[in-house]
Amino acid sequence: MKLNIAVLQGDGIGPEVTAQAVKVLKAVAMEFNHIFTFQKALVGASAIDKTGNPLPEETISICKKADAVLFGAIGDTKYDEDPDAKIRPEQGLLGIRKELGLYTNIRPIIAYEDLLNKSSLKVKQIKDTNILIYRELTGGIYFGDRYLSDDGNIASDVCKYERFEIERIAHLAFKAALSRKRKLTLVDKANVLESSRLWRRVVKEIAPQYPNVKVNFMYIDNAAMELIIHPRQFDVILTENMFGDILSEEASVIVGSIGLLASASIGDKHAMFEPIHGAYAKAANRGVANPIASILSAAMLLDHFGLYEEAALVREGVDKSLKLHITTPDLNNKYDNITTTKVGDFIEDFIQNPDETNLN
Amino acid sequence: MKLNIAVLQGDGIGPEVTAQAVKVLKAVAMEFNHIFTFQKALVGASAIDKTGNPLPEETISICKKADAVLFGAIGDTKYDEDPDAKIRPEQGLLGIRKELGLYTNIRPIIAYEDLLNKSSLKVKQIKDTNILIYRELTGGIYFGDRYLSDDGNIASDVCKYERFEIERIAHLAFKAALSRKRKLTLVDKANVLESSRLWRRVVKEIAPQYPNVKVNFMYIDNAAMELIIHPRQFDVILTENMFGDILSEEASVIVGSIGLLASASIGDKHAMFEPIHGAYAKAANRGVANPIASILSAAMLLDHFGLYEEAALVREGVDKSLKLHITTPDLNNKYDNITTTKVGDFIEDFIQNPDETNLN
Ligand SMILES: CC(C)[C@H](C(=O)O)[C@@H](O)C(=O)O
Ligand SMILES: CC(C)[C@H](C(=O)O)[C@@H](O)C(=O)O
Repeated sequence: MKLNIAVLQGDGIGPEVTAQAVKVLKAVAMEFNHIFTFQKALVGASAIDKTGNPLPEETISICKKADAVLFGAIGDTKYDEDPDAKIRPEQGLLGIRKELGLYTNIRPIIAYEDLLNKSSLKVKQIKDTNILIYRELTGGIYFGDRYLSDDGNIASDVCKYERFEIERIAHLAFKAALSRKRKLTLVDKANVLESSRLWRRVVKEIAPQYPNVKVNFMYIDNAAMELIIHPRQFDVILTENMFGDILSEEASVIVGSIGLLASASIGDKHAMFEPIHGAYAKAANRGVANPIASILSAAMLLDHFGLYEEAALVREGVDKSLKLHITTPDLNNKYDNITTTKVGDFIEDFIQNPDETNLN
Repeated sequence: MKLNIAVLQGDGIGPEVTAQAVKVLKAVAMEFNHIFTFQKALVGASAIDKTGNPLPEETISICKKADAVLFGAIGDTKYDEDPDAKIRPEQGLLGIRKELGLYTNIRPIIAYEDLLNKSSLKVKQIKDTNILIYRELTGGIYFGDRYLSDDGNIASDVCKYERFEIERIAHLAFKAALSRKRKLTLVDKANVLESSRLWRRVVKEIAPQYPNVKVNFMYIDNAAMELIIHPRQFDVILTENMFGDILSEEASVIVGSIGLLASASIGDKHAMFEPIHGAYAKAANRGVANPIASILSAAMLLDHFGLYEEAALVREGVDKSLKLHITTPDLNNKYDNITTTKVGDFIEDFIQNPDETNLN
């Protein structure tokens, strides 16, 4: 297969972790006789530094022409600390999601057997947890009108949803549930929000088309608690943009490190693959950034194009790295010298030679 | 002291747990020679059933005349499952918060030594956690304009804040931090929301007035994770209405049961005290509801009127009940016959005779 992949490394640890995912994809191409080409483009704070724009036109056009986008991370403390900044790195990420119409963000939350003891949660609590979060990604309060009064004393944001925005992701979530434990939980705040009541209404209307999927509804406050005390009750979680942002980062505590969480952002024409973690400027260029989230995002990319065997091999490589403690410091209390690159090298080696790879 | 307390029991387990708090307050009045009078009023689903209105005028007027309000819980599954219901129990709770101007909701999160092993989190993770959440309670998306298009296909909610709404609660939070570990964390989503940027700006402006308080800023998604992996880093958390709702219910996992979390809702003229848990219709009238959250809310009421010794005695009673396993099933794996009433009786006995109380 020929795939033209746009690589948006972004800021902070973005370039380092993305480099490992690219390395792994190159090894996959080599072993399976695919032709993957990679084209870099600017986004985020680094794009602002070079062009004044967090999402240059050229980046948009490279992404639109590509078969898929591999995304690193964006953000910089200098903008976080300045609420008055008019141009912000996040506009690059939100902009590309919108430009490519990536309305469905899929975030798997899997408690790896080998990492159970790394979690803040008790092992018996999280064992066998396997959740797929379907987060709506191009609507809600992320993209509603914003307002700041001239005197700077009043500010507002609008959370708006239209029926079609809910329907299209809901169908994808129901279909995903069909091939899993056939349970779908809609998380909302329907006891307060009109937009949440629309979500609840639409999901109730669609549900009869999937008679084999059991649907339930949960308020976001309650879900934030239930996710920790009874994570195994969840199969597919469907939710709007902001609640999905909060729940999925919270869910990282189940997995043991946010450095493990991958995601796929899917639209009708385009697809982008990105770790759920941020840019962590402080950790950049120190070799400590965990590349697994980016590598697992690459595996989701392979799946997306039907390259299931390839994706499975990448995941096997990841599993083996975890089992052998070839992991960055966030997960490692056995070896203290395993760098970002070393993890990438190990998984690359594994793909080239699955039966022989060991720590070298 | 003379106190006239309005009692809004509400729905589900509300009446049962509130009855225990009233019992405890009566014991306090007796032992300390105070005169507490109690006046019941309708709210929530039970008020809808009887009057068609989740917040009858009479209830508002009783609350406005009272020195304080003791609130139970509201909500009913029949409304949760009907997104089209125009009249909803939650309007009673949101209405009374607004009518009384209760803009500051204070939610203490304390890891009780005797309950450390009840948490889903590892003991070493949560030991010594002591957080005070300051949740804004009368603004934001809870009270912004709502819209539903005539064809039912578009819905929206507005999250709006004005400077004065942020200032007044921020000052209270800073003052609270001064008498604690002198750390204040503002939780927001300033990388996306205009209203969050206003919060950040105002808190930055106020901060120099409290030079002894260390201020930091955290995005809500990150905070939802940090609360679980590093809870001890927090002292006072200040946040807007919706984020406070989510974070405080999530934080219950640290304490071991949501049935332990009390809150105080304070305004310039009025004050209301309520558990953070909901109505749990399914648990109602079975004697299993944990009354501690309501009893600790009563302790916050006593504190509010400067009755510190009285409040401390109530808390001692609660501590003793936890130590002796006089607790409802959510916390008890030793005795299986401790009912809601029995917990209330035990704490009442303790107040009447602090040195001799034991399980009877
Ligand atoms: C960086 C930020 C705008 C982004 C979001 O909130 O969507 C991030 O937290 C994420 O989850 O991808
Ligand atoms: C019942 C509901 C409207 C309420 C809220 O969201 O404020 C509750 O969850 C709470 O936290 O007091």
